[in-house]
Amino acid sequence: MKNRIEVCFSPRDFDLYKEGFEIIVVIDVLRATTAICAGLANGVKAIIPVDSIEKALDYKEQGYLVGAERKGQIVEGFDFGNSPYSFMNTKFIDKEVVLTTTNGTKSIEISKYSGQIVIGSIVNLEALTNWLVKQNKDILCLCSGWQDKFNLEDSICAGAIADILIKSGKFYSDEDSTISAKYLFQQAKTNPFGLLKASSHRRRLKNLNLNKDIRYCLTPNQLKVVPILKDGKLILLNEE
Amino acid sequence: MKNRIEVCFSPRDFDLYKEGFEIIVVIDVLRATTAICAGLANGVKAIIPVDSIEKALDYKEQGYLVGAERKGQIVEGFDFGNSPYSFMNTKFIDKEVVLTTTNGTKSIEISKYSGQIVIGSIVNLEALTNWLVKQNKDILCLCSGWQDKFNLEDSICAGAIADILIKSGKFYSDEDSTISAKYLFQQAKTNPFGLLKASSHRRRLKNLNLNKDIRYCLTPNQLKVVPILKDGKLILLNEE
Repeated sequence: MKNRIEVCFSPRDFDLYKEGFEIIVVIDVLRATTAICAGLANGVKAIIPVDSIEKALDYKEQGYLVGAERKGQIVEGFDFGNSPYSFMNTKFIDKEVVLTTTNGTKSIEISKYSGQIVIGSIVNLEALTNWLVKQNKDILCLCSGWQDKFNLEDSICAGAIADILIKSGKFYSDEDSTISAKYLFQQAKTNPFGLLKASSHRRRLKNLNLNKDIRYCLTPNQLKVVPILKDGKLILLNEE
Repeated sequence: MKNRIEVCFSPRDFDLYKEGFEIIVVIDVLRATTAICAGLANGVKAIIPVDSIEKALDYKEQGYLVGAERKGQIVEGFDFGNSPYSFMNTKFIDKEVVLTTTNGTKSIEISKYSGQIVIGSIVNLEALTNWLVKQNKDILCLCSGWQDKFNLEDSICAGAIADILIKSGKFYSDEDSTISAKYLFQQAKTNPFGLLKASSHRRRLKNLNLNKDIRYCLTPNQLKVVPILKDGKLILLNEE
C-alpha cells in the first residue's frame, strides 16, 4: 500500500493539514533549514530551535552560542543570525548552539508534537528523499513561508520532495497544494534561479546584500545530511 | 504609475492580504462564481449571496427562489444548488434569487467591506479583465478555495487574471502567491483539462456526476458579463 505525501504552504494552514502524518518535513530554504543542515554537516553537535527572542536570551545568559534572526537581519545583542556561513566556524564544532528565526523555528514549534520532525532544504534534498522513501510513513512537508504567507522557494522545495517520492512509486498525494507545488518545482527545475529571481523573499534578502547566502541556499544536494528533532534538539540522523 | 494586482489563495488568508485594494475579485470556479455569471447572463435580475443556511431559509420563507449548496450537493429543503445550469431557467428571469454555497458566498461575506466586489470565473475571464484593465485601481483576486484550503482551479483563474493585467503593462505584483498563480495558469493554458484532471475538487464533483457542470465551468470566455456587488446584491455592471 502506498504512503501519502502532502504539502502545506504555511504554518498558518498547518491545523488544516496536520492530521495523520508520521513525519513532518520542516522547510525554510531562505535560510533557517539550510543553515541547520550546514551547521550539522560542519560539525555542530546539536542546534536547539527556540521560537522567541526571550528564550534565546535565556540560553545566551547560560553561555550558549545563540543565533537570532528577524526579518532577514541579525537581532541586536546576538552574534549571528541564520546565514549558513555563520555555522561554518571552528568555534561551533561539537557545540550545542541555539537558533531563533522569523519563520523556520516557528514551524518547528507548532509541528513538533504532530510527528517526527526532519529538516528539509534544497542543499540536502537528495539525502533527505533517499531516507524518506525508505520509511513507509505518511509525510507532510510544512513550508515556513514568510510571516504566514505563501512563499515560492519553500513551495518549490516541497514540490521537489513530493515529485521525487511520487516518482518512486511508493507515494501518492490528494491535495491541490501538493499538485501545485510539484508543478512549480517542475517549472523551476530547468531554471531555478530564473523562477526564484522574482521571488519576494529573495528580493528582500538581495536588498540586504545576501546574494552569497542565496546562492548557497539554492544549490541542490551539497550536503549529505538528514537533521531530525530529538528531545528538543536538532541532530544528525544516525542511520545505524 | 502602475497599479497592483495580487492573488490571495484562500479566504482564511484574506486578512494577510486585504489592505489597500480597491477592487476584490471573488473567484469560485467550481461552481459558485460561474453560476452567478451564468444566472445574470441568462436574465436573472439579481443574486443575493448569503453565508448561512439559516439566512437562506429566511429568504425562502419570504417566497424567494433560494439555492443552497454544501460540499457539492443541494441542501435538503432547497430547490437548487450552485450548478450554473440551474440558473438557466425561464422561471428565474427578472427575479431576485438567493444563493448560499460552501466556499464562494463566504468569500463575498468576508471581503465585502474591503473593496468593490466583482465576480471572477473562467467563463467571464475576458469580459472581466477588459473591464479591470481600465479601472486604474489596485486589485486583489480572492480565491475561495475548498474549506479554507488552497485549490487549483481558483488559483489558475486568478493567475490568468494576473497574467493578463500584468501583460497590459499597467499592473505589477509583489507577492509570491501571484507569481505562482501566474505560473500555474501558464502551465494550464496549453492543457487546462490536463492540469485540472488531478484537482481534488474536480474529482470530488466527478464522483457526484457533475461532469457536464465541470466542462461548462472550465470553458473560457463564454459570457460577456461582469457581475458586481451593489447594496448586498450581485447585479450586472452597467457600463453606461
